[in-house]
Amino acid sequence: MKELIAEIVKFNEDRDWDQFHSPENLAKSIAIEAGELLECFQWNNDYDPAEVCEELADVMNYCLLLADKLGVDPEQIILEKLAKTAEKYPVEKFRGISTKYNKL
Amino acid sequence: MKELIAEIVKFNEDRDWDQFHSPENLAKSIAIEAGELLECFQWNNDYDPAEVCEELADVMNYCLLLADKLGVDPEQIILEKLAKTAEKYPVEKFRGISTKYNKL
Amino acid sequence: MKELIAEIVKFNEDRDWDQFHSPENLAKSIAIEAGELLECFQWNNDYDPAEVCEELADVMNYCLLLADKLGVDPEQIILEKLAKTAEKYPVEKFRGISTKYNKL
Amino acid sequence: MKELIAEIVKFNEDRDWDQFHSPENLAKSIAIEAGELLECFQWNNDYDPAEVCEELADVMNYCLLLADKLGVDPEQIILEKLAKTAEKYPVEKFRGISTKYNKL
Repeated sequence: MKELIAEIVKFNEDRDWDQFHSPENLAKSIAIEAGELLECFQWNNDYDPAEVCEELADVMNYCLLLADKLGVDPEQIILEKLAKTAEKYPVEKFRGISTKYNKL
Repeated sequence: MKELIAEIVKFNEDRDWDQFHSPENLAKSIAIEAGELLECFQWNNDYDPAEVCEELADVMNYCLLLADKLGVDPEQIILEKLAKTAEKYPVEKFRGISTKYNKL
Repeated sequence: MKELIAEIVKFNEDRDWDQFHSPENLAKSIAIEAGELLECFQWNNDYDPAEVCEELADVMNYCLLLADKLGVDPEQIILEKLAKTAEKYPVEKFRGISTKYNKL
Repeated sequence: MKELIAEIVKFNEDRDWDQFHSPENLAKSIAIEAGELLECFQWNNDYDPAEVCEELADVMNYCLLLADKLGVDPEQIILEKLAKTAEKYPVEKFRGISTKYNKL
């Protein structure tokens, strides 16, 4: 993961793009790319896996840049949030149920 | 990265949530969480880092689930897309420039 | 407003596109177009007004289609929601304040 | 439509919220609310029409504010875009087809 982030950071340093990457701009970029990913599924489920992978890669690329910009370890924040979600969604209560915790 | 994905997959298997995780539903979920991440920056730049990390973790969590569902390695698709982007945005032409390649 | 919606509906009937316009697909389309609108502001504030208008029109177009599909009057649901928001955000408490009601 | 926009503008003037409504912030808000609308359809199609209407109203509310901020007539820009889309998607070629014009 660290090497991957280093690779992404280098890519952007080479282009002097870091100046554009405020947390806010990265959050906008994640939403924009998430929209492009969703477009692969706009009208039906006949998606093109290669296209989905490219758009998914774009979303993750900006996610890793944002984590780097915030100085946090992606793996750690994901595991911490998972632990928090586990408390909100105990196994015995939410097994096989997709309802949001505050609507059950 | 593999351990992290295994952890996320286990979390969802424990709750029998895999049945809800079609690629389309995961793409929707990524867009929904990207909107929540953006909300941290809706009116100004005084964001709460802890809140941003939680929302970012949610986006990445669904991204890793989608990669797993598609049977692809997140690191590999990110690096492949980076190589493709590098061709579209050669260093000498795009250094310090945020304009989209098809608008320059 | 009614004539505008009739125009939009006719446009889609001419193309036999109504079959693709489930509420879910229209909601996805609104999110996708909202992402394209946001792209006009991705890296800075030097937006192209003509481009913004086109993307905004796309968002509104799908919004009106969704209202039509749900059989509701756009004006009415906007005014009803405004009344509800007015209760959550009383003038004396929220004047000049952008904080969300549940965070103040 | 004009009365509706006047109503929305008054609502925001009463709260002195116009200061937060730069075109960029409104574009972010549209994307955020579009995400909340999409959440009504996240895991299945058993949506709550009342909830969908509220989220749709939020999206349209910000759309009308953005049109007002840009000094454009929502109806006019929608019709203009419809005319442009009609050229890209001629009836005879795209009848019953959901494929994007640049992919057919």
